[in-house]
Amino acid sequence: MKLVFATHNPNKLREIQSLLPNNIELLSLTDINCHEDIPETGSTIDENAIIKAEYVKNNYGYDCFADDTGLEVNSLAGAPGVYSARYAGEEKNDAANVDKLLNQLKERDDRSARFKTVIALNLNGNENLFTGICKGSILEEKRGTNGFGYDPIFQPEGFNKSFAEMDLKEKSAISHRGIAFRALIEYLSQ
Amino acid sequence: MKLVFATHNPNKLREIQSLLPNNIELLSLTDINCHEDIPETGSTIDENAIIKAEYVKNNYGYDCFADDTGLEVNSLAGAPGVYSARYAGEEKNDAANVDKLLNQLKERDDRSARFKTVIALNLNGNENLFTGICKGSILEEKRGTNGFGYDPIFQPEGFNKSFAEMDLKEKSAISHRGIAFRALIEYLSQ
Repeated sequence: MKLVFATHNPNKLREIQSLLPNNIELLSLTDINCHEDIPETGSTIDENAIIKAEYVKNNYGYDCFADDTGLEVNSLAGAPGVYSARYAGEEKNDAANVDKLLNQLKERDDRSARFKTVIALNLNGNENLFTGICKGSILEEKRGTNGFGYDPIFQPEGFNKSFAEMDLKEKSAISHRGIAFRALIEYLSQ
Repeated sequence: MKLVFATHNPNKLREIQSLLPNNIELLSLTDINCHEDIPETGSTIDENAIIKAEYVKNNYGYDCFADDTGLEVNSLAGAPGVYSARYAGEEKNDAANVDKLLNQLKERDDRSARFKTVIALNLNGNENLFTGICKGSILEEKRGTNGFGYDPIFQPEGFNKSFAEMDLKEKSAISHRGIAFRALIEYLSQ
């Protein structure tokens, strides 16, 4: 079975392919000659994942899964949410995004937040979402140098270090992305 | 392993228990002596499922899953959504809900909609959501007598009959609820 993972990133593709049974051949967007930008016009993380998966199905005919991730801060009514990657401006800039969020949270007592990864799967005419949630809180300043994005200021519940102070294996065991992809992989492995 | 299904309905419990491996002992809310109403204060279907599962975990200590379902109509900006069961008033009334929706959609060209079931699972400290989506459209009048809720006016994409004109097996193969529960069951069966 051929299945598209809506990414151009060969590392992401290889990582997931290695966890899937042999009868599933994973294809990237590059593999199917999809070179245009897929519109990410959803107003929620769910919608963006759904839009990407449906775009591939409708335009290229392949069954497909697509992921989207965001950070939802409770005292900011769920912001930056679907805008996490471009919170401080159209150009993706991790440092600027982190600074903006720290500024927004100055004077706020409630620093609780959650990371969310949603994977939308279109398979055999059915549409599933697999969502991984990791609850935690936003630190007052950056800690650690691993990871990317908001990792230096996100401390998962039950831990006293940030995502950026964890190695990849430790982070993956509890992370939103790890939880969502494990559910997808177990579903596809049946 | 003991796992709570946040329902009082013994039929729902038996249905899911019969699909799970023997090492999982499913408990209902009645089984754990949870007799109070769990607050459903979320503003989305996702949130209501999450709130219910976390309520059981926080107050009774059990790993738990909880489901919530809604109908989202595109030209009504996603309504009735989280309010599907009580669209026409606090008292649950399927006929009144259907009538209200048909009235809201008079004069609307876009009758596209989707049913969504979200299952929130709290297990071993991780939080997953399993979402099943069934796309379709709202008919102009009721058809069929099976099912419940909005089934008589919902026609799934690719079919020329309403959910209420399908038998349970046919509906379950394509329904939001079937899709979501199959993903949960396959995840728990690993």
